[in-house]
Amino acid sequence: MINIAVLGYGTIGSGVAAVLKTNRGIIARKAGEEIGIKYILDLRDFPDDENADRIIHDYSVILQDPEIRIVVEAMGGVEPAYTFARQAIEAGKHFVTSNKALIAEYGAELIALGASHRVNVFFEASVGGGIPILRPLNTSLSSEDILEITGILNGTTNYMLTKMSEEGSEFADVLKEAQEKGYAEADPTADIEGYDACRKIAILTSLAAGRQVNYTDIHTEGITSITAADMKYAAAMNRRIKLLATSRKAGDSYCVMVAPFLIGADHPLSMVNDVFNAVFVRGNMVGETMFYGAGAGALPTASAVVADIIDAARHMEEHTPIQWDPENLTLVSEKKMACAYFVRTTADPEAIEDAFGNVTYVKAEGIEGEQAFVTGIMDGATYAEAAGRIDGIIQMIRVN
Amino acid sequence: MINIAVLGYGTIGSGVAAVLKTNRGIIARKAGEEIGIKYILDLRDFPDDENADRIIHDYSVILQDPEIRIVVEAMGGVEPAYTFARQAIEAGKHFVTSNKALIAEYGAELIALGASHRVNVFFEASVGGGIPILRPLNTSLSSEDILEITGILNGTTNYMLTKMSEEGSEFADVLKEAQEKGYAEADPTADIEGYDACRKIAILTSLAAGRQVNYTDIHTEGITSITAADMKYAAAMNRRIKLLATSRKAGDSYCVMVAPFLIGADHPLSMVNDVFNAVFVRGNMVGETMFYGAGAGALPTASAVVADIIDAARHMEEHTPIQWDPENLTLVSEKKMACAYFVRTTADPEAIEDAFGNVTYVKAEGIEGEQAFVTGIMDGATYAEAAGRIDGIIQMIRVN
Repeated sequence: MINIAVLGYGTIGSGVAAVLKTNRGIIARKAGEEIGIKYILDLRDFPDDENADRIIHDYSVILQDPEIRIVVEAMGGVEPAYTFARQAIEAGKHFVTSNKALIAEYGAELIALGASHRVNVFFEASVGGGIPILRPLNTSLSSEDILEITGILNGTTNYMLTKMSEEGSEFADVLKEAQEKGYAEADPTADIEGYDACRKIAILTSLAAGRQVNYTDIHTEGITSITAADMKYAAAMNRRIKLLATSRKAGDSYCVMVAPFLIGADHPLSMVNDVFNAVFVRGNMVGETMFYGAGAGALPTASAVVADIIDAARHMEEHTPIQWDPENLTLVSEKKMACAYFVRTTADPEAIEDAFGNVTYVKAEGIEGEQAFVTGIMDGATYAEAAGRIDGIIQMIRVN
Repeated sequence: MINIAVLGYGTIGSGVAAVLKTNRGIIARKAGEEIGIKYILDLRDFPDDENADRIIHDYSVILQDPEIRIVVEAMGGVEPAYTFARQAIEAGKHFVTSNKALIAEYGAELIALGASHRVNVFFEASVGGGIPILRPLNTSLSSEDILEITGILNGTTNYMLTKMSEEGSEFADVLKEAQEKGYAEADPTADIEGYDACRKIAILTSLAAGRQVNYTDIHTEGITSITAADMKYAAAMNRRIKLLATSRKAGDSYCVMVAPFLIGADHPLSMVNDVFNAVFVRGNMVGETMFYGAGAGALPTASAVVADIIDAARHMEEHTPIQWDPENLTLVSEKKMACAYFVRTTADPEAIEDAFGNVTYVKAEGIEGEQAFVTGIMDGATYAEAAGRIDGIIQMIRVN
């Protein structure tokens, strides 16, 4: 029996207990031994829960118990998760987490600490929930020069955009519905402003580059400005509006941004609907790959956590290296990213063509009193300069 | 420097050399040391090739060289690959292969031999080319009870079906075009009859079940009977015809088959076009996942081979267990698989409904003199019984 401790008995923590229980036999076969939860650390008590007698409130019990070789953090937030992580690793325990905030901020540091203590630090569930992506990036795609990572990394916004696209509804109405269904939080800021996706693409880019990418350096736009009218234009172009977190190799660095994009119906990401997530990866040898699945939810996320636990259990005496140096990678400005732009404006065609040259006009049923067009491919700085020369821009969405 | 030997300097072997050369720095960083090809075994000489001085013709040189810790087999076919594999493993060398015929036949045996000699046997490239699927199945999805694996696993047939769907052309014409473009071989039997996909789903199912699945036990149908008329009906139903290799959990075993299926436009596999491949995996905790990418081609396949080489290099002194017991898994008959059936027949509605009960009729533009319909969901035995009661069946395609 391999004894583990779970920190936090919320959605993910209780999901981990559920996965370990439901698939006990399969997991024991894969790990080589049965895996049991000895302690669950939580501020609360759960007197009626089947794991009531495993709940403790004092972390030092876990740190001091030599039977605990793997600590699983499922609390979320940076503190006390960060302090607990350091203490676990320094006590020689493998550390598994689903916490994107913790990893985006301290991933490099915790990996280095893990290396010096010869324990594993695994965090598959921190990006893409149940989708296997970090481990494949670190192992299966290890021979690749990663040219692009583009993800639909936030289930809430993807659900909302799918609804807006299918039902023609406005942002505010869809947000309200998503909140009622439990797909959006009471304070939806982190999702709809792109902050959640931003931390996830920071983690993915750090792993692709092998260097620290600060999420605060990433240009991030949310979906709050997307309207039903935009969706009509998208349909007219046979495109979809998706919140993409994208990272493109530029020289020795990456150009990274989070923003709504119009993607073609033939792009693999275009079929990723509702709360599903996907990560599209382009390597210089393998070409296009994509990893698709449930980006959130208790059981899918816990499934990824338990896979990490099994990996740690299989390599109890061995350290798995993860390339993620603490040295900060200076990102290439998002203004350098070349793409076409979809623009809606009250300006007239003469002014538009004067500023942008040849453009392709788009018509959507029932929308009058404005011009909508797609520019040629240009970088962000060129676009901004041209856009500054026409008045009355209603909307701009990048075209992938 | 880690020295490796490559067996076979054909498409994949030379691809491995190209990947190792192009991404040398990245690979060295990931493997911890530079990886160099010391020998290439081939019957031929390549006097003008940059690797001319590495070509040898005597395998014993490789077996007896203690510097060679990793042997990479890229010859294809069962013999002499099988003999060479055993000899390499028995000599204490890690063994990496892209050879699906070898692994479908001797995977369990070679894994067991590897375990007893404490060396790794890796074969990611044998299924899905460059798509990371076997390693994720063995690691990232290790906590899952795998309920379904359904793959588009053959690029040739997927290219042909995509062309037929888009261009309305007939099978024979598309086959000819695919042969001219090099997407289909002069003897296309293994692809168009489903034999290639059959070996791949056998490997995938063996890994999911942890037991040997004999590919000869798998019910396999190809795409040779698919016509332009079928494609018209598919379009009328907003469905796609895809050659699926599918494995569904049934009790403690799996029901496995390779056959053309009609899949809905909302299924993740429906957007997998041209030579691309994808593997859809459903687990009891994670739900739906999908892995998409290039299923063939020198560089994508070689990329997966090199990822295996890096994994072997990282774990030079450690054996990575792979669950695949030699004991044969008795498959559940494909006649037990429940699905709906699309049927074209010259029988009249009365006879159809007498045999199948309520059905949904389908019309396609320009097709007269027949009835086409979709049955309710029933198992294969029930379908066969009902179909036996009507005359003049022109076509049957399962509906996923």
